[in-house]
Amino acid sequence: MARQQLPIEEETPQDAAADNNSVAFHDAGASNKSKVTVVGSGNWGSVAAKLIASNTLKFPSFHDEVRMWVFEETLSNGEKLSEVINQTNENVKYLPGVKLGKNVVADPDLEHAVRDANMLVFVTPHQFMEGICKRLVGKIKKEAEAISLIKGMEVKMEGPCMISTLISEKLGINCCVLMGANIANEIAEEKFSEATVGYRGNKEIADRWVELFNHPYFIVSAVQDVEGVELCGTLKNVVAIAAGFVDGLEMGNNTKAAIMRIGLREMKAFSKLLFSSVNDSTFFESCGVADIITTCLGGRNRKCAEAFARHGGKRTFDELEAEMLQGQKLQGVSTAKEVYEVLRHRGWLELFPLFTTVHEICSGRLPPSAIVETVK
Amino acid sequence: MARQQLPIEEETPQDAAADNNSVAFHDAGASNKSKVTVVGSGNWGSVAAKLIASNTLKFPSFHDEVRMWVFEETLSNGEKLSEVINQTNENVKYLPGVKLGKNVVADPDLEHAVRDANMLVFVTPHQFMEGICKRLVGKIKKEAEAISLIKGMEVKMEGPCMISTLISEKLGINCCVLMGANIANEIAEEKFSEATVGYRGNKEIADRWVELFNHPYFIVSAVQDVEGVELCGTLKNVVAIAAGFVDGLEMGNNTKAAIMRIGLREMKAFSKLLFSSVNDSTFFESCGVADIITTCLGGRNRKCAEAFARHGGKRTFDELEAEMLQGQKLQGVSTAKEVYEVLRHRGWLELFPLFTTVHEICSGRLPPSAIVETVK
Repeated sequence: MARQQLPIEEETPQDAAADNNSVAFHDAGASNKSKVTVVGSGNWGSVAAKLIASNTLKFPSFHDEVRMWVFEETLSNGEKLSEVINQTNENVKYLPGVKLGKNVVADPDLEHAVRDANMLVFVTPHQFMEGICKRLVGKIKKEAEAISLIKGMEVKMEGPCMISTLISEKLGINCCVLMGANIANEIAEEKFSEATVGYRGNKEIADRWVELFNHPYFIVSAVQDVEGVELCGTLKNVVAIAAGFVDGLEMGNNTKAAIMRIGLREMKAFSKLLFSSVNDSTFFESCGVADIITTCLGGRNRKCAEAFARHGGKRTFDELEAEMLQGQKLQGVSTAKEVYEVLRHRGWLELFPLFTTVHEICSGRLPPSAIVETVK
Repeated sequence: MARQQLPIEEETPQDAAADNNSVAFHDAGASNKSKVTVVGSGNWGSVAAKLIASNTLKFPSFHDEVRMWVFEETLSNGEKLSEVINQTNENVKYLPGVKLGKNVVADPDLEHAVRDANMLVFVTPHQFMEGICKRLVGKIKKEAEAISLIKGMEVKMEGPCMISTLISEKLGINCCVLMGANIANEIAEEKFSEATVGYRGNKEIADRWVELFNHPYFIVSAVQDVEGVELCGTLKNVVAIAAGFVDGLEMGNNTKAAIMRIGLREMKAFSKLLFSSVNDSTFFESCGVADIITTCLGGRNRKCAEAFARHGGKRTFDELEAEMLQGQKLQGVSTAKEVYEVLRHRGWLELFPLFTTVHEICSGRLPPSAIVETVK
């Protein structure tokens, strides 16, 4: 009945549910289940696929199969990564030893992988997203919903562009985000953790993402604050660099706690200056205080920054990254640079002594000990 | 006036600025300097005396001498603790190796120590405060101002009584609080940290306390929220017990971060239910998130709880405390019991699964692993 009143109606089956304020992709009959594709298959992407694949089997409103786009690589034994994943149900390169679920299908063809998806989960290194979006224009379902698990932002002449905004604008679809205290390997081992979904306006869509990701060992909550949640995920890596410096300088737990608190304060202030819609309460969620804690206790940004400070800044982050991370990339250093550009461009450098100093230490202009001196 | 906006104020003779709105003790001419007494001389009390003694020498509005009440003990060599402190400027028992300042005078006579004080700093184990207050009735200056550095609360038939309230009510004086991410030995080593002063109504009084405690390595901020700040200092020890269980169970950083976040959320909710005046923003201060971090990383509550969980709850906290803490007391276990009594009395147990479960584990009714199961 009311279906005719909906101007953005493309493929009939889903829309029946729109009558009841539901979202299009939510009403899934036997022949009309939501299909999920994970775009990305690194460490976190593989864990996300595992979480999702377990739930698509459990809930009848999802299609069992979870398609996972794999950036094809040839392994040292000459085999293709995507083929090995499909044979073994394991991402032997980025999440070895963990079964993803037999309903995860690795697909090296990006356009093919997304073609039938109603729900797109983006989880690639952030620098690849602009290129991926360009390739996907016109290749996805018009009513698809997206969620980004990607940390980082694009800094352009006109200002910072969040990844969820990039996806929304380039692809013309709605995009939520999922962030939180989520060290991938610990979730793969099914140890208890939490995460936060940030959504823009439609709570039903957020609830659908919560349903897709939530597990007894992975508790997901939704807050109406895309930018706040996404900036938490992005900026926490800058704070982790600062915390790593404190560790390398052996300054103790009080100092580390103070630096983490000041970092959280700058994350909040920066987010609110950029987006007046950002809520203070978001920073009490898993994406805020909990992610700061886990990232500053154990993450790779913290670890490399500790080594940087122990070497007195005499070895570069590029060297340490190559030596310590086995091919994984360090996001904090590049995010710190991006944030610094935003601050400088807007005349805010002095308002954010911690963010500013992290970049100045990373780029060799200040010694690691400056991290404490400048925030006093 | 501008000075209220600057917590780090060092050079101006502040008191000249004490205008009409100033309080009695603030208007200090040459013959009318504020006299400070520290009531307590344990580990934290000694560090507080050191911080204060450095500032009373620096600012002319304070009397140089800082009197410190010492609960007299006879050391193993037969000497009196107070006499050794006065001879060596060191608290050889509770803060060995650190000079307190020659202007710290140890005084074993409580009534004598407080008699002339305009500013009273209370820093004793919380269970002694009721008795100390009884002894001090009628023995202090009527216009004296107090600050409490004491964690814990008294639970009575009529409800919980904060230590600052106990001091205010028993002695008829105003009482602020100072809490924060303050592991005493790290501050004694002058490593950078922060703290929060909570005050009730009069910002000038808060500023005066900030002036007394603030150092370049110890940054103090004031917020108008005595109860919020004090409850942070009290309740964080319960969260630290929970975090220690997670460590003992080797559940990883995501889980620890989640438990710390849920703990912070329960601290906030509990404080706001008890006192509607409590502000959310207080939990972003040093007394909130930073103290949770430092206490859950390195404190003694965390440490004993870790050992408790490693032993599968088969050794009691009393045994572990005696073995591991060399005479220091564990506050988290007794605070958890006090909080549990409040929750039970008000019918709030189910609203606070973490607080409730900490007590039930400590008292042997649940296994340590319950800490994660019940908060899911």
